[in-house]
Amino acid sequence: MRLIKGLSLLALLMAVYSCKQPKAQLALSSDLTQYVDPFIGTDGPGNTYPGAVVPFGMVQLSPDNGLPGWDRIAGYFWPDSTIAGFSHKHLTGTGAGDLYDILIMPYNSRFTADLWPDQEDYRPYSMFSHDQESASPGYYQVQLLSSGIKAELTATKRVGVHRYTFPQDDQSKILIDLGYKLNWDNPTDTYLKLQDEHTIVGYRYSTGWAPDQREHFVIACSKPIEAIDFYSDGNKLQSTEAKGPNTKAEITFKSTEGEQLILKVALSSHSIEGARNNLKEECADWDFDRIAEEARENWNDQLHLIEVQGTELQKTIFYTNLYHCFLTPSLHSDVDGWYKGADGQMHQAKGYDKYDTFSLWDTYRAAHPLYTIIAPAKVKDMIASFLSHFNETGLLPVWSLAGNETNMMIGYHSVPVIVDAYLKGIPMDAERAYEACKATANSNAWSLQPYKELGYIPYDLENHGHWSVSKTMEYAYDDWCIAQFAQALNKDDDYSYLSERANYWKNLYDSQSTFIRPKDKNGKFLAPFQAKDYTEPYCESNAWHYFFHVQHDIPGLIELIGKDAFAAKLDSLFSYHPEADDELPIFSTGMIGQYAHGNEPSHHVPWLFNEIGQPEKTQEMVRRILNTQYSTKPDGYCGNEDCGQMSAWLVFASMGMYPVNPADGIYHLNSPWLSEAVINLPNGKTFKIVTENQAPENHFIQEMFLNGEKQTKLTISHADILKGGELKFVLTK
Amino acid sequence: MRLIKGLSLLALLMAVYSCKQPKAQLALSSDLTQYVDPFIGTDGPGNTYPGAVVPFGMVQLSPDNGLPGWDRIAGYFWPDSTIAGFSHKHLTGTGAGDLYDILIMPYNSRFTADLWPDQEDYRPYSMFSHDQESASPGYYQVQLLSSGIKAELTATKRVGVHRYTFPQDDQSKILIDLGYKLNWDNPTDTYLKLQDEHTIVGYRYSTGWAPDQREHFVIACSKPIEAIDFYSDGNKLQSTEAKGPNTKAEITFKSTEGEQLILKVALSSHSIEGARNNLKEECADWDFDRIAEEARENWNDQLHLIEVQGTELQKTIFYTNLYHCFLTPSLHSDVDGWYKGADGQMHQAKGYDKYDTFSLWDTYRAAHPLYTIIAPAKVKDMIASFLSHFNETGLLPVWSLAGNETNMMIGYHSVPVIVDAYLKGIPMDAERAYEACKATANSNAWSLQPYKELGYIPYDLENHGHWSVSKTMEYAYDDWCIAQFAQALNKDDDYSYLSERANYWKNLYDSQSTFIRPKDKNGKFLAPFQAKDYTEPYCESNAWHYFFHVQHDIPGLIELIGKDAFAAKLDSLFSYHPEADDELPIFSTGMIGQYAHGNEPSHHVPWLFNEIGQPEKTQEMVRRILNTQYSTKPDGYCGNEDCGQMSAWLVFASMGMYPVNPADGIYHLNSPWLSEAVINLPNGKTFKIVTENQAPENHFIQEMFLNGEKQTKLTISHADILKGGELKFVLTK
Repeated sequence: MRLIKGLSLLALLMAVYSCKQPKAQLALSSDLTQYVDPFIGTDGPGNTYPGAVVPFGMVQLSPDNGLPGWDRIAGYFWPDSTIAGFSHKHLTGTGAGDLYDILIMPYNSRFTADLWPDQEDYRPYSMFSHDQESASPGYYQVQLLSSGIKAELTATKRVGVHRYTFPQDDQSKILIDLGYKLNWDNPTDTYLKLQDEHTIVGYRYSTGWAPDQREHFVIACSKPIEAIDFYSDGNKLQSTEAKGPNTKAEITFKSTEGEQLILKVALSSHSIEGARNNLKEECADWDFDRIAEEARENWNDQLHLIEVQGTELQKTIFYTNLYHCFLTPSLHSDVDGWYKGADGQMHQAKGYDKYDTFSLWDTYRAAHPLYTIIAPAKVKDMIASFLSHFNETGLLPVWSLAGNETNMMIGYHSVPVIVDAYLKGIPMDAERAYEACKATANSNAWSLQPYKELGYIPYDLENHGHWSVSKTMEYAYDDWCIAQFAQALNKDDDYSYLSERANYWKNLYDSQSTFIRPKDKNGKFLAPFQAKDYTEPYCESNAWHYFFHVQHDIPGLIELIGKDAFAAKLDSLFSYHPEADDELPIFSTGMIGQYAHGNEPSHHVPWLFNEIGQPEKTQEMVRRILNTQYSTKPDGYCGNEDCGQMSAWLVFASMGMYPVNPADGIYHLNSPWLSEAVINLPNGKTFKIVTENQAPENHFIQEMFLNGEKQTKLTISHADILKGGELKFVLTK
Repeated sequence: MRLIKGLSLLALLMAVYSCKQPKAQLALSSDLTQYVDPFIGTDGPGNTYPGAVVPFGMVQLSPDNGLPGWDRIAGYFWPDSTIAGFSHKHLTGTGAGDLYDILIMPYNSRFTADLWPDQEDYRPYSMFSHDQESASPGYYQVQLLSSGIKAELTATKRVGVHRYTFPQDDQSKILIDLGYKLNWDNPTDTYLKLQDEHTIVGYRYSTGWAPDQREHFVIACSKPIEAIDFYSDGNKLQSTEAKGPNTKAEITFKSTEGEQLILKVALSSHSIEGARNNLKEECADWDFDRIAEEARENWNDQLHLIEVQGTELQKTIFYTNLYHCFLTPSLHSDVDGWYKGADGQMHQAKGYDKYDTFSLWDTYRAAHPLYTIIAPAKVKDMIASFLSHFNETGLLPVWSLAGNETNMMIGYHSVPVIVDAYLKGIPMDAERAYEACKATANSNAWSLQPYKELGYIPYDLENHGHWSVSKTMEYAYDDWCIAQFAQALNKDDDYSYLSERANYWKNLYDSQSTFIRPKDKNGKFLAPFQAKDYTEPYCESNAWHYFFHVQHDIPGLIELIGKDAFAAKLDSLFSYHPEADDELPIFSTGMIGQYAHGNEPSHHVPWLFNEIGQPEKTQEMVRRILNTQYSTKPDGYCGNEDCGQMSAWLVFASMGMYPVNPADGIYHLNSPWLSEAVINLPNGKTFKIVTENQAPENHFIQEMFLNGEKQTKLTISHADILKGGELKFVLTK
């Protein structure tokens, strides 16, 4: 018995080894990280950061320019020329200025406060130049021109790693600044303590967009700390610790020319001890190059989930966008599962990793469906994370961040994510998941009470009128999703009731204006009404965008308005350009007529031509968006990247498909932009998308073959993809 | 190789089994729990509780009368006739009214609010009678006369277990009352939630003596919960949860006659999830009788550490006192080591159990030395707990409770505990422990600044004069302890400096009054001065008590005053009785002359006659205290039991010895009160104390033999005890 076991183990080890081998070879022969440019999105409205992070990592270690403003929501803005330091958490692609935890900045005697004469409580900034800066997945480096210090960053899941190369200086310094804050972020209590000559520990509690953020840390320093000063509110303390809303510590040492120092900064939402465990488990040694190489390999494995062919420019756009798909959700639990929950309590994730930073209004559309294809194990953990949030708050997350519900944006779009995953067979506690969906939909949060009572949300209800049309439309979609879940679980009464609610969007349809139009509590439509106006009842949008926002019932919408009128309205959307004096809001960017690619509500609309027998218009419009709204420049996104959604759109569209209804397991087809895409499915199979006659001018699909058989329908199912096989597009002018 | 390993394991198992066997037989043949009466101390000033607890357990599940006041500091006072419920945490023997977390009370339709007509927000109380009540180690039961419900309690380390036997009733109820508060305790935020039909979870955060107490809980109910109401501030909620400073939940069900229901209540200072882990690990099944039997066996093992012979009354007093020695310190960490630290942060105890509830001003005297003899493994964990407290706060604990420093009482008496343990060879991180002692003594906390500058604490220094004499004396003692530690670690400079500080008590000696007398900042003694007065500079005492409070330098004290004067003063202490109109404070009880056995400062004084060649006076006085200040009645303590100190005094004295200086490893001898005591040392050896001619009238030692050799000195060393052997006393009239 024992002998057999011994042999089995050996066989298993050999199997694992032989599995690993080809992957390693693949990585060597084809390093896809070369196609990722982390600076794309750091200019313009993209609001991404260029720093070091691993896929779905807790730590986002990235440079901060140190200046406030919408442009610097991710800490860094390409046009700027200063660096204030490197903080450990950043949002990617959002419009909300939060996080920026635990800023670290090396400097030396060359720094003079004169550099920023207007700053009273000055901080050591450095000038930098893009010529002496670079970034790749899991790695960032910059030459700090004001001090001559080279800074390099890398990360594991929960640990940020800094390597600083100093010039000779008697006053080389490392500042750890917990009082540093930006935009909405505001520290409430911070703590710093010298624990031993290699270790500083502490925490930074802050409030901002997420009201109760707790970041504990352990900072391990490769060089013994001989001189360190602690400050509170700018006053030097006679102590080896500091506590208060604005603390900092400053290490001073004499550096020799080229001396390197490494800092490892482990985080935990739970406790300092949790951070210590994370450090020990993930990053025990001091080999910066190995850690950076592991981060790169991790990214390369992730990018190899889809192997594409195309021009160098296409590959750079594709892989940079695929990279951005994997920055969020962010890991929130420690190595032992503990995390700070949305109820302010400590919880332990058992059997899964707890994720947070769910920008669901954006990401339910394409990012989450993409994860169901290439990262179903992560989807399983994300749904377990939703359910833990439900356990903590009684509601599913809307826009949850760092163990908080921010209640930003609208809809209960964890529902389509859950239902889509369930119908695609991703493991979950289905009864509990259903209970969570139902309880959320039946709650009285977010104007659900008038919605349930009246079948729509009136624009004139006190405290309820905000975004009333958009909420009505999106709730109806989410209710349709729960209805499908109910049907699958044989909950017939719920199915009937929720299917009825799925039609509530019709209650706001105005046959006279042929738009979805705000109604008051007495059932009277708002007047005057102009569809192109950006008004209160529409969430970051106007009536043009929300007309098409019936992801679950396009046939019903066509039936309601009539096919010809629908076709005309769809054409108009893309051709009715805003006039010169139309004032567009900050989020309405990437405009093609009224269509705004820079925001999410109309992301699915280009595929609706397929529904009315005009697939060539879908094919032409998607190509146009791909060619005009994405680029390899720092301003390569036309709007907020939005935690992966803007990127997931490109990933899908460039391969020739898109989930119009993100919960029905159907992808609607367009002509691929890439020459080829091989999806390496986690089930071991591959699904290959190939093109014949791929050329910039060949926008149109002449014919299609699925596994050699001619395909006439303009959709492909998730099940078909999971079986593996080949979808071939023959293209034409 | 494998085969040999297999055999070794078998051999090991057999070895363990053969080790365990005799213990099990011993337990069967001699159940020492029969001699423990948990009601002793529940009347009079003892302030103990009668409920269910295991040795050093986190949970102290005990009945609460529901009335406030000094007499009910432990929740229960023998003369009372009501029970308001059973709460899960209680202090034992203190003068501080705190804890009382998570009150549970069963009742039914027989209860009418009329019973307590004056209570506005009435709570269901029940009458009870001592005739229908009993308690033994790990078990308590009472018949609730107002409802006919029988309540039984037992506990594991972290879980309180209730078994209620109901009469037939359509409205049987279980109230979980988080708003219940008493004395100094005040809930700040509480939470209750029905998690599933068998489980209620929540927390109770409160402030009181300990400012930031966090008690999370999971309540498992053996019967499915079909009807439950949640309340906040007395208002019934339409919800399955409640949050706020005053919440409660009430389960209602129809009970059949004799129906039993079990509740398991797991606690955690860390989180609800921590409580859930504790429950799963410690108390997975529903076998109340088995749990109670395990608690009893645990206690029996603990009591068997010292096996004594004597009268039944003596055995009841001895074992009840030994029992009280093991109620605190209380376990504070979860099964996985996590706990809420004194800095409000979460910490993980690694490789030890974190303890808290350290009443060190009391317990450093005899309780901690007793643990070094019979429970050194626990001492190791207690010292690791001190060091974690030091890590969290920068100071060693003074009176720490439930993850807080209360700063109650004076001295830094974790120092003698640490130094005693170190010198006795108990494992610890010695350098860190030394650093903690030194940092604490060199801090400016607790009037240490004037103490260091002037060599004493002046009574007239603003904010510093309180207890100035007592602090000076006790700091000098603690400094002597650190000096010994420094010497052992070859820290010569520290040794010199601290040895000097160990003499600071002399700075307050007034050769005119021959007392230690308060001095002002200019060095002038306070006048007028009367030694018997209880004045501000003396901590809960007068100048009589503190004169002898030089535990580390009795020879120095004798030299200072002269041997004859010392002898006269010692005689006077025990014979100079307070006059009829002398007003004694609440803590000065157990009076013999000025000697107050009911408080700690003079506990060591009876042995000082040994120092001046009058051992017969020590022998007579110790007998007198044993015979007059302890009994088997509910008021069997003459003062606060004080977390084991009053009991440890009896345990030592009844065996014939006492640690006058609790950190020098020397026990001073008196004539044993018991006929025999066998100490089962954890090193496997036994140290036996036997008497010849033991009789109530034979107070005096005629001769002594250590391991058969005649012994003339009046001390025995810790090392001698640890070697095992026999100390024989021949007694005489």
